[in-house]
Amino acid sequence: MLGELKALTQLEFSLTSDRPQPGMLRPRGRTERIRTAVLAATRAELQAHGYAELTVERVADAAGVAKSTVYRRWRDTTGLLTELLRELVRTDLPLPDSGSIETDLRELALGISRFYADPVQRSLFLGVIAAAVHDPRAADALREFYAARNSQAAESVQRAVKRGELPADTDPVEVIRALGAPFYYRMLVTHEPVNDAVAEKAAAAALAAVRAGAHRTR
Amino acid sequence: MLGELKALTQLEFSLTSDRPQPGMLRPRGRTERIRTAVLAATRAELQAHGYAELTVERVADAAGVAKSTVYRRWRDTTGLLTELLRELVRTDLPLPDSGSIETDLRELALGISRFYADPVQRSLFLGVIAAAVHDPRAADALREFYAARNSQAAESVQRAVKRGELPADTDPVEVIRALGAPFYYRMLVTHEPVNDAVAEKAAAAALAAVRAGAHRTR
Repeated sequence: MLGELKALTQLEFSLTSDRPQPGMLRPRGRTERIRTAVLAATRAELQAHGYAELTVERVADAAGVAKSTVYRRWRDTTGLLTELLRELVRTDLPLPDSGSIETDLRELALGISRFYADPVQRSLFLGVIAAAVHDPRAADALREFYAARNSQAAESVQRAVKRGELPADTDPVEVIRALGAPFYYRMLVTHEPVNDAVAEKAAAAALAAVRAGAHRTR
Repeated sequence: MLGELKALTQLEFSLTSDRPQPGMLRPRGRTERIRTAVLAATRAELQAHGYAELTVERVADAAGVAKSTVYRRWRDTTGLLTELLRELVRTDLPLPDSGSIETDLRELALGISRFYADPVQRSLFLGVIAAAVHDPRAADALREFYAARNSQAAESVQRAVKRGELPADTDPVEVIRALGAPFYYRMLVTHEPVNDAVAEKAAAAALAAVRAGAHRTR
């Protein structure tokens, strides 16, 4: 199970790899080649120097592309980060299906804590989240990303409802929101650590709440 | 009870008022007069134009203070916002004490949703949270603010534990974190609305989780 979890984390979040992911669009022609090179350079710059140092100039240099091309197409670093997010949501995501909602929620939560243990992934997401407070492009990209990811993850909850493990009128996406919320609260609001112990608690809390009927559709 | 709740919300969060709050330090001498004027001008600018338009120049003009004074003392808008946050945490906060943890958690959650219905307060907090992703001064201010506020709010949970309503080894602050997390998740991550319905669900979920022993000290 730990092996599966590792594969899950790696596949969902392989931002630092340049290999194409299953389900990702294939490059086509010059426009697509530029796009692929610029996104790979953005990932490499995030990895090497972090979000605070990310500039359009550095990305253009690293990609071997004219700065004006990057400015015209992506405008700024927020444009680059939101496109990385859109790329990520197109990848297929293997999700836990253990036959027990308790195990599935625990695996999903551990996937989140391990994802954010990677500084590049943490930089990308926190950078987009910070930008989204003032930039509607980033807010739209986040809304789309989490709408897609949360409804994929909610399939575990739907299966548990069908098995009779959870109340019939459970709102599956609400359970996934509840599972994720404690991580972002700690990273963004209280600036407290995020680790596997936080994940275990988040999973236990989400499970208790959904069992008690706190996450019902209305 | 609604009257009490309104008073609670107003007193905790009267950012838009210039009246001194109970427990707030009194101005002393020229330095304190400048500080009071600059913070009042920051609040007024946030109210009139929002965070995106906030600049040191505008604040200095509105306060009738030299720009160089504001730059020297607060450096930038993040310095101004973090000082507003520090001011806010010094105010006394009347907290619910209904004799029932269910009612107390519901009142606390409704206080949060109503707080963020005010665009000035929302601007201030989301602005500081976005800045804190890259600026340790803002992160420190948030950490201090929520450490103080969450431990004050946790007194409701401590009383419920003493009354025997909740497990004896409950972690009171963890319950308050769980109560707050869904609001920030929606405002910052998924960009979904925050309202009283979200508050009711957050309170029900936190209550179910703590009753089931998901928020224990370890």
